[in-house]
Amino acid sequence: MNLLLLEEADFIADDLARLSGRRLQHMLAIQKVDEGGSLRVGRIGGDMGKGTILSLSDSHAELSITLDQPPPPKLAVTLLLAMPRPKMFRRIMQHCATLGVPRIVLLNSYRVEKSYWQTPFLEPASLRENLLLGLEQARDTVLPEVMVEKRFKPFVEDRLPALLANTLPLLAHPGDYPPAPRATTTAVTLAIGPEGGWIPYEVEKFVEAGFQPVQLGARILRVETAVTSLIGRLF
Amino acid sequence: MNLLLLEEADFIADDLARLSGRRLQHMLAIQKVDEGGSLRVGRIGGDMGKGTILSLSDSHAELSITLDQPPPPKLAVTLLLAMPRPKMFRRIMQHCATLGVPRIVLLNSYRVEKSYWQTPFLEPASLRENLLLGLEQARDTVLPEVMVEKRFKPFVEDRLPALLANTLPLLAHPGDYPPAPRATTTAVTLAIGPEGGWIPYEVEKFVEAGFQPVQLGARILRVETAVTSLIGRLF
Repeated sequence: MNLLLLEEADFIADDLARLSGRRLQHMLAIQKVDEGGSLRVGRIGGDMGKGTILSLSDSHAELSITLDQPPPPKLAVTLLLAMPRPKMFRRIMQHCATLGVPRIVLLNSYRVEKSYWQTPFLEPASLRENLLLGLEQARDTVLPEVMVEKRFKPFVEDRLPALLANTLPLLAHPGDYPPAPRATTTAVTLAIGPEGGWIPYEVEKFVEAGFQPVQLGARILRVETAVTSLIGRLF
Repeated sequence: MNLLLLEEADFIADDLARLSGRRLQHMLAIQKVDEGGSLRVGRIGGDMGKGTILSLSDSHAELSITLDQPPPPKLAVTLLLAMPRPKMFRRIMQHCATLGVPRIVLLNSYRVEKSYWQTPFLEPASLRENLLLGLEQARDTVLPEVMVEKRFKPFVEDRLPALLANTLPLLAHPGDYPPAPRATTTAVTLAIGPEGGWIPYEVEKFVEAGFQPVQLGARILRVETAVTSLIGRLF
């Protein structure tokens, strides 16, 4: 935890916060802070700064809060992701929050198993918790927006065009395509398929919508690896 | 498993292999192959090609093997990695094998906890298994070389200079440094620190050895994320 993130409910006054639970345990056990000590804090969705510990016990901590620094900028990307399997989904959400992806669309695909949509990690509280873990790691305060689109065709035909406005739409797909570009200066909409890839019908629909298929070389990457590697390459 | 990797011991003739265990279970349960069917195979350290299933039972499979394709090229990089915590270590080894890193040096650092070196994932059989999982994912046959260096100073002073010959030595480190380069055309030696980063003494020793510190932006990445993102950016 490189940044202690504060919820609205933690504030008992404008410049005073009271904590308990996971964050307090982390402060006590890992960060080993003392009364009078200070640590980096951020208000979820707001600025970052310093928290000074006024009082500390096993059950709660009170911190005096000064926020004077904006969070780091986000990447100019919308990530369109075929819904990954649960274990990987959780990690990818954390990675995306850490890397600064501001918007993620979780999309159905022929090769997405129906059971993936049943994962408890998709429940709002769990999803938020994993995004917060990613933000704490990066030192960011702004939660990515996550959209869930369980029907491929209506999404691609009806809602995708508006998302694509003023972006370069790239479809990561193995095959005889140009390599993914580097260091883009425009905003990107990046579509990454499921394990096993998009099926030809899906590729066709993306191409109709204006996507350029790009390949990543001879190696087949896990979705998790492809997301991080492509973002490293693009931005 | 995008490639069935064959050990020397699997070959009962030049063009005939017999399998059991994990790979057979995967073939039966996940790939659902039948007699007469074929799948992509590779000989560890050798070529890739096709395996045709001659016979199949719950206990073993016999395949006729044709190898006619070289494995994909490796990246021109040596990764110098402060020994990560065990869970992450295992995944990083898989990622590195998948991405095509040919050589990894696991290095001690002030912020590496002593217990990390006790992980069973460092035992040769376990390390090899995780690297093979990464190769199967990527469709590669050549195991990365992994060197273990538990003493920082003797390694950096005595053995590192020979490793650096004809490479661009880069030290990923937060601070007021130039950003990491993109799409390098030279071979790179890339040093990535532990959670919490290299300590100033270590940075100094790396700089004395010829390393250029480079930064990755305002966000603090997990080691796992930094490895994949930097490789995506560099190559």
